[in-house]
Amino acid sequence: MIDVGIVGGTGYTGVELLRLLAQHPQARVSAITSRKDAGTRVADMFPSLRRRYDALAFVEPDKAALKDCRIVFFATPHGVAMAQARELVDAGVKIIDLAADFRLRDPAVFERWYKMPHSCPDLLAESVYGLPEVNREAIRQARIVGNPGCYPTAVQLGFLPLIEAGAVDTKHLIADCKSGVSGAGRKAEVNLLFAEASDNFAAYGVKGHRHHPEIVQGLALASKTPVSLAFTPHLTPAIRGIFATLYAPLLKPELDLQALYERRYANEPFVDVMPAGSAPDTRSVRASNMLRIAVHRPAGTDLAMVLAVEDNLVKGAAGQAIQNMNLMFGLPEATGLEALAVLP
Amino acid sequence: MIDVGIVGGTGYTGVELLRLLAQHPQARVSAITSRKDAGTRVADMFPSLRRRYDALAFVEPDKAALKDCRIVFFATPHGVAMAQARELVDAGVKIIDLAADFRLRDPAVFERWYKMPHSCPDLLAESVYGLPEVNREAIRQARIVGNPGCYPTAVQLGFLPLIEAGAVDTKHLIADCKSGVSGAGRKAEVNLLFAEASDNFAAYGVKGHRHHPEIVQGLALASKTPVSLAFTPHLTPAIRGIFATLYAPLLKPELDLQALYERRYANEPFVDVMPAGSAPDTRSVRASNMLRIAVHRPAGTDLAMVLAVEDNLVKGAAGQAIQNMNLMFGLPEATGLEALAVLP
Amino acid sequence: MIDVGIVGGTGYTGVELLRLLAQHPQARVSAITSRKDAGTRVADMFPSLRRRYDALAFVEPDKAALKDCRIVFFATPHGVAMAQARELVDAGVKIIDLAADFRLRDPAVFERWYKMPHSCPDLLAESVYGLPEVNREAIRQARIVGNPGCYPTAVQLGFLPLIEAGAVDTKHLIADCKSGVSGAGRKAEVNLLFAEASDNFAAYGVKGHRHHPEIVQGLALASKTPVSLAFTPHLTPAIRGIFATLYAPLLKPELDLQALYERRYANEPFVDVMPAGSAPDTRSVRASNMLRIAVHRPAGTDLAMVLAVEDNLVKGAAGQAIQNMNLMFGLPEATGLEALAVLP
Amino acid sequence: MIDVGIVGGTGYTGVELLRLLAQHPQARVSAITSRKDAGTRVADMFPSLRRRYDALAFVEPDKAALKDCRIVFFATPHGVAMAQARELVDAGVKIIDLAADFRLRDPAVFERWYKMPHSCPDLLAESVYGLPEVNREAIRQARIVGNPGCYPTAVQLGFLPLIEAGAVDTKHLIADCKSGVSGAGRKAEVNLLFAEASDNFAAYGVKGHRHHPEIVQGLALASKTPVSLAFTPHLTPAIRGIFATLYAPLLKPELDLQALYERRYANEPFVDVMPAGSAPDTRSVRASNMLRIAVHRPAGTDLAMVLAVEDNLVKGAAGQAIQNMNLMFGLPEATGLEALAVLP
Repeated sequence: MIDVGIVGGTGYTGVELLRLLAQHPQARVSAITSRKDAGTRVADMFPSLRRRYDALAFVEPDKAALKDCRIVFFATPHGVAMAQARELVDAGVKIIDLAADFRLRDPAVFERWYKMPHSCPDLLAESVYGLPEVNREAIRQARIVGNPGCYPTAVQLGFLPLIEAGAVDTKHLIADCKSGVSGAGRKAEVNLLFAEASDNFAAYGVKGHRHHPEIVQGLALASKTPVSLAFTPHLTPAIRGIFATLYAPLLKPELDLQALYERRYANEPFVDVMPAGSAPDTRSVRASNMLRIAVHRPAGTDLAMVLAVEDNLVKGAAGQAIQNMNLMFGLPEATGLEALAVLP
Repeated sequence: MIDVGIVGGTGYTGVELLRLLAQHPQARVSAITSRKDAGTRVADMFPSLRRRYDALAFVEPDKAALKDCRIVFFATPHGVAMAQARELVDAGVKIIDLAADFRLRDPAVFERWYKMPHSCPDLLAESVYGLPEVNREAIRQARIVGNPGCYPTAVQLGFLPLIEAGAVDTKHLIADCKSGVSGAGRKAEVNLLFAEASDNFAAYGVKGHRHHPEIVQGLALASKTPVSLAFTPHLTPAIRGIFATLYAPLLKPELDLQALYERRYANEPFVDVMPAGSAPDTRSVRASNMLRIAVHRPAGTDLAMVLAVEDNLVKGAAGQAIQNMNLMFGLPEATGLEALAVLP
Repeated sequence: MIDVGIVGGTGYTGVELLRLLAQHPQARVSAITSRKDAGTRVADMFPSLRRRYDALAFVEPDKAALKDCRIVFFATPHGVAMAQARELVDAGVKIIDLAADFRLRDPAVFERWYKMPHSCPDLLAESVYGLPEVNREAIRQARIVGNPGCYPTAVQLGFLPLIEAGAVDTKHLIADCKSGVSGAGRKAEVNLLFAEASDNFAAYGVKGHRHHPEIVQGLALASKTPVSLAFTPHLTPAIRGIFATLYAPLLKPELDLQALYERRYANEPFVDVMPAGSAPDTRSVRASNMLRIAVHRPAGTDLAMVLAVEDNLVKGAAGQAIQNMNLMFGLPEATGLEALAVLP
Repeated sequence: MIDVGIVGGTGYTGVELLRLLAQHPQARVSAITSRKDAGTRVADMFPSLRRRYDALAFVEPDKAALKDCRIVFFATPHGVAMAQARELVDAGVKIIDLAADFRLRDPAVFERWYKMPHSCPDLLAESVYGLPEVNREAIRQARIVGNPGCYPTAVQLGFLPLIEAGAVDTKHLIADCKSGVSGAGRKAEVNLLFAEASDNFAAYGVKGHRHHPEIVQGLALASKTPVSLAFTPHLTPAIRGIFATLYAPLLKPELDLQALYERRYANEPFVDVMPAGSAPDTRSVRASNMLRIAVHRPAGTDLAMVLAVEDNLVKGAAGQAIQNMNLMFGLPEATGLEALAVLP
């Protein structure tokens, strides 16, 4: 049984970790922290957890027995994980950061987008970007994993087969993305209110979004050519779900795109290439760790179009983190993540 | 491993059975029927089932090997189960009907509300009403279980402690109920369209609802006095969830209602009595088999007020059916039903 | 042309006043205040107002030329209107408070529920409760109108015909009410987030709600007998709309309830008694000033049941305020309020 | 007063025409037809119309006094308007078809996409495509107007300034569009059910959508170069609203796009160019005839990106039809269409 610690468990990725780990046969949450809500039982904050987590309460960060855990998830704002990472890894504790501290390889890029210097560039250097479909072997060996952002997971997995095959012009990529509101976190902000976000559809981050450099980093690694990407996030009135509509000019019009995708993801437990002609929807992955993907060639154009859906809180956050944990501890990769999507 | 058959698997209770049974360690779906969609793979109709049910396809009702199953769930319109019940039970197959054929004890009442005569009153007489919190022992022995309706589950479990204790005036009961739209089934009807039901709230069935006699039947069995009930169903723009707000005039004002409820449901795996003063919400049970309940005494009144929430497709349908199946096969009652609610 | 001032225009009732007044042929908004957003153009905060209010900006409360207005609406938190009322009425400016300062006749009741002493009991004594269907003549003469709360409008108009006729037992009234999320205001609170309130249904205020004494005050005035009311507010995932389901034990079972309601509201421009047997829905009044009402007698009970729907921001707030303004200035009561509901 | 007839008034564009025309000071609906619902009062089908349309009932198409009207709106499925057009125009009645019969200039293209031959190519030839921002003068003179589709309105008005200026490569246009569910009409189809479309996001029409040729036709007319367009419609869980995210490779990188758009639409009553850097949302136009538009240049790309929002039932259908009617009858173009958007 793996003792798990969670730092900052009061947000949506925190409660989703609790939900998913309750289904995991070989892990148990033994510590969870919250500065603001120390002393509160997690089941009093989230009644959905009653009957399963009745004994677990938030503790002050510095009082939590995190060093007794074998792995600690950081479900915190950016900057927290890098501040505590060294002490934990020195104590032999593995770390998965669900925020951005270990996502961007270049500390300068991190600083530019997150407005803070990186406090442990050496640990950043050894850390692994936790996208199993790309870095599976490295994740198995990692002490620190930077869990990918929700948009970057969908966009990278959507584009990668095309880019790895050199099939598209990487200087003219477009990712038109739509996210459910939970992607913005459990923050009391006016624009996230039901009365604002419901029955509405909006673009946001039009002047630049932090997931942009993360996506470009991943695509550039897979490409032999420079990457230029227009990335437009939108807010759709759903709780969960990311829908990525991706466009790329085809360089190899004769290529069988369907076969390319099926081959690339043939052995992936959590990437499902839909049949040719499919139009996926986000509910088909709601509350599950699956990413579904369909590839198209819009009539009368020279484009490849990819449609990718995921649950931003599962494959886009907590589920992928557990998938990474499974790899880091030598467990079957899908352990605890087999639940089907909740439909309707 | 229990071989399970599902008759009529194209509706919401059908796909929910498939979702939940995929998590069940001792059951597998070996046959599923649909007259209209015979030949279609279930995963082609419901992509959420891909990767788990890739080999399962709908078959014509009369070609399905239902007699080779040990249990058959009827997720059909009313009238189907009673037509096939005798042949199946004679073959030793257990039956759980998720429609109304085996809910109402009195065939005349059935006929009045469902506009068809009951075709097998003898089987109705031996069948058991599948509310485990009331009929657990009888369910264990049953060949045929009439699975309760969604409203009746919430309303009965909400009122029962008060009525069993003789604490309320059963001639003045009110059940003001709100249901998510999936409760109406997967039917192409204008009033269930997103553009009609979203951003809206409506009462319906104001001239009488088929769940009324079922609720009254259950409450009358528990009471020593006649039952009179105003039951008002409403449609709320949510996919899943029933919220029952129940009112009853208190006859024993000194009674400790919180203790009464906690005692009544102390050992129930799927009834969670919330702390005094709680206001439950439907998302706290979304996609789970739990029913949560809070009991109040509105200030300045002589009333008891009960708030009960359930997922209409789980505890109100497919989950309760599996709970009954577990009882019928001597399995631990919660097998396959342990998943926590999906929140947010 | 009536010059109108709005104090506190950044909330939902404020922007709704702006929307409705833009349609009003004899009023124009000449001043609007906001401490926090002084200097911001209203159309920059609410782009829906662009092209109509391009010149109007929020000003500091003490710099606004409110005394040059003929009427000032207070769309503020409780306590603001009573602090500024004397100075304005002394200057000959009429006042309509959309908060609670002039709703409760008894300053002691106000203080108990709003946790602040009433600062001008004499003005409270002369002020008029702005429910036109009850106080039309007094409103015409009033200098200060306390605009009713959203729930109280629906519940009072729903119950009044029964109570005025002495037809029900006023000691056993139940108001089971459901509100869209905008009723809670434009406040950054976690429980109002889309990801919390969507696909959910919840009760709230179970320990007491400030609209309870306001409702009881109105019903008691109409009744010859003491009033006891259970009032249960719920939150439904819609932006706008209140649905009130009201129950009362009938004392006069022979009474023709339909005729009673039609007669009582025969000349009301904004109360629509639906045909017998109707089930109203909130979208039928969305964005309009109409309240629709249906009266029923649930089979097998001795109850009257009333279903009343309104838009909480219009008839439940800004629309009713303008209706009151029309009365106070001798205009046709429906001026500027004729728009039909937005459906779908 | 203009007597208006509506053919096929039971769908969403029909009821929206009724809502909007109720606000129109110089038009009245004097006839409305429905084969299926003849005899039903419109206010019995849509209670939102009560008190305004109490005398209006659907009549059989062949019994309606359409020739006594001065204008007839066809809110019907494709094919109906062209069957009745000749008789009406011969009688001096003007026609606005909200379906597709008079949208596509080339009868062969119409036949290819709508699977029926065009029955009156001569009338098609004289008819005018009802996009006032392009064809204002022709609309004033027209006897028959083909009212644009919802997507084509947003996409054309979004792209036109760029294309008219020769500023973009018209062979690589992308229109990633999102529509509320009412855009699919008031049809009882499973995929439009609340329980299917809510809390979900989906692409559809991936193999080709009928609005594609309509958009291309309009863009090609404005361009000197061939047009190639990828058009991807998506369904978002909102009732109303279209959000078009448009991408085009810039040929003139030095061009001031903001100035271009402001200049192009300077005198348009219903196109609002937002300030530079804006991110419009659909609720800012909900229930109004305004189209709002923002133009961007995504960092690090050579693209122009345009964000355009409209209410699909107003500027995308019934509102634009009334705008056209105003032009055809020499009325001020905005008559009856001044209402501000409903927000929240």
